[in-house]
Amino acid sequence: MFDFSGRIQKVQKTLLTGDALWISQKEEVFYLSGFTGDDTVLVVMKDRLFFITDKRYTEQLRYEVSIPYELLLVESGRGRRECLLQLIKDHRIERLFVDKASFPLALYEYLVRQVPSLELSETRVVKDMRMVKDAVEIEVMKQNLMITEWGYAYIIRKTKPGKKEEELATELEYFLKKKGAKAFSFEPIVASGYRTTLPHGTASSRVIEKGEVVMFDFGILKNGYCSDFTRCFSPFKIKKPKILEIRRIVEQALRAAEEVVKPGVTAETVHQAAYRVIADAGYAENFWHSTGHGVGVEIHEDPYLRFGNTQILQEGMIFTVEPGIYLPDEGFGIRLEDMVLVRKNGAEVLTQTDYKL
Amino acid sequence: MFDFSGRIQKVQKTLLTGDALWISQKEEVFYLSGFTGDDTVLVVMKDRLFFITDKRYTEQLRYEVSIPYELLLVESGRGRRECLLQLIKDHRIERLFVDKASFPLALYEYLVRQVPSLELSETRVVKDMRMVKDAVEIEVMKQNLMITEWGYAYIIRKTKPGKKEEELATELEYFLKKKGAKAFSFEPIVASGYRTTLPHGTASSRVIEKGEVVMFDFGILKNGYCSDFTRCFSPFKIKKPKILEIRRIVEQALRAAEEVVKPGVTAETVHQAAYRVIADAGYAENFWHSTGHGVGVEIHEDPYLRFGNTQILQEGMIFTVEPGIYLPDEGFGIRLEDMVLVRKNGAEVLTQTDYKL
Repeated sequence: MFDFSGRIQKVQKTLLTGDALWISQKEEVFYLSGFTGDDTVLVVMKDRLFFITDKRYTEQLRYEVSIPYELLLVESGRGRRECLLQLIKDHRIERLFVDKASFPLALYEYLVRQVPSLELSETRVVKDMRMVKDAVEIEVMKQNLMITEWGYAYIIRKTKPGKKEEELATELEYFLKKKGAKAFSFEPIVASGYRTTLPHGTASSRVIEKGEVVMFDFGILKNGYCSDFTRCFSPFKIKKPKILEIRRIVEQALRAAEEVVKPGVTAETVHQAAYRVIADAGYAENFWHSTGHGVGVEIHEDPYLRFGNTQILQEGMIFTVEPGIYLPDEGFGIRLEDMVLVRKNGAEVLTQTDYKL
Repeated sequence: MFDFSGRIQKVQKTLLTGDALWISQKEEVFYLSGFTGDDTVLVVMKDRLFFITDKRYTEQLRYEVSIPYELLLVESGRGRRECLLQLIKDHRIERLFVDKASFPLALYEYLVRQVPSLELSETRVVKDMRMVKDAVEIEVMKQNLMITEWGYAYIIRKTKPGKKEEELATELEYFLKKKGAKAFSFEPIVASGYRTTLPHGTASSRVIEKGEVVMFDFGILKNGYCSDFTRCFSPFKIKKPKILEIRRIVEQALRAAEEVVKPGVTAETVHQAAYRVIADAGYAENFWHSTGHGVGVEIHEDPYLRFGNTQILQEGMIFTVEPGIYLPDEGFGIRLEDMVLVRKNGAEVLTQTDYKL
């Protein structure tokens, strides 16, 4: 379904003879090859491709990976690092590209001892590729979001006083999996009452009470891609004016952010737009996080919509827009989250569900 | 429930003035403090404790952590690394203990630039503590295994020709969550027919056929601890003699390994015992993995039962014993897995389910 060989070729074009790229993050291994197993490293060279794995995964590699590859087996007495060292020696690798934010210090120290001349460098090539989605990825991600919103429509009908948050999370997961989700894309948030002020309040045994707001923040993983969605819901008409006011401000911030989305503006600009609305309403101190993040094979990936991020938005980027206001002293918080696709003329808001409580 | 302050004190006793221990792994942060959120680092010094986190988690910290701590907030313009640097300067840290196998190269390079005199060392103190379970941990882990086996008893009644592997995985998960599981402790394996030769064949859309073996390998996470369990099942009497023979050998290997478990022997000895049985039967080439691994706050942790591991077994260790034989050419594989607690006089096999198909 996905163009793995095209992706690999794109990466290989950036490499010279003597270069190798080390990919150990599961999601990135999938992105480049289609392999979904764990504990497996992909090493890309200018004209070849190696998997470093162990016997647990050789069969799975055969089923899942259609592009040509060579195999280096981790065995007793030969770990990952010995496999890497062998590749470096056999192929005269002089420069190894790694993700320094995740590359382990222990492996670095080993390499420096064994091959003092080896240069370790960083590259953004895969991260940059991942940010911009092609037509197939967009289709898959829309499908995933549709199932996600279907799950929301289902679960709010079951959301009543007396239910526990974790019961709802379990019912929701069961529904989503029946509809084809492989998993939640992250531990879902089902937070009621004061727990809505925990921006990452995963479902607890708390029982929902009358008149409370329930925050649902969840997404699915399917066909290797994630979705992300947040709405706040109340089974009864909310009467507390403060809640209604805050919801309105958050919706304004969300719309303001979506309005500035287009190719050529910076990620920071989108955050600014949401922040401005919330700050002008007097709640700058109660907006505790950034406005959004890219979504793809990972639930959180570039671009991050936050202060200081000068990343230029491009057509094909998909990210969340999710401002929130949290008032612990009032005992509630509101967050609304859409997924947005950058189109030539502006944002295509992928999320369909309305913003009402 | 857990003795977090006792754990922290134990760690602190190993530290001198000028030492700090950096704990960034989610499971270890939980193990030492009770905090279950993400993206949060615990820094332990001889006489104080810091969390480096951001505003998303300050409320959750307050609810979950009962031991005294100080807070360093990650904010725009002050990331994790700047927080760490501040701690190092404010508290004159000369030696930082880290887990080099996971400590990121980028952070290392930053620290070396900023504080050239800083020494980075490794310590096994928390890993060693985690290996040996106390009475409360044992109780929690037994409870988790009971729910796991309850799930197996439930799901094999639903395992029939015509069912899809992933349907069964979904039903199983729903049952386990209803019974209090927070999550699967890893992506469950429900593998039928030839897919039993994939030692990590997670549930697929494959439909179970008559006369096939179905492998279930799953566990739950509850109260912060994991369980792990594998059995092979067939809804009909298996007639293929080869399958019956292999099942018998795997059971013998399992029992042989469990018999040698006692305080004072090495982890390798247990692996040797299982390996010997399988090799003597002529299937050394078809036993693709090690015999087992510790279980606790992580699904895979020390001690690993494999060649070369001279770790001495101690009372209170809990690990899996899970030999397997995989015959891709015959189209099937068999693995059986118990959880075992090291007692003074030998193994207490925690798993109750019988080994029959």
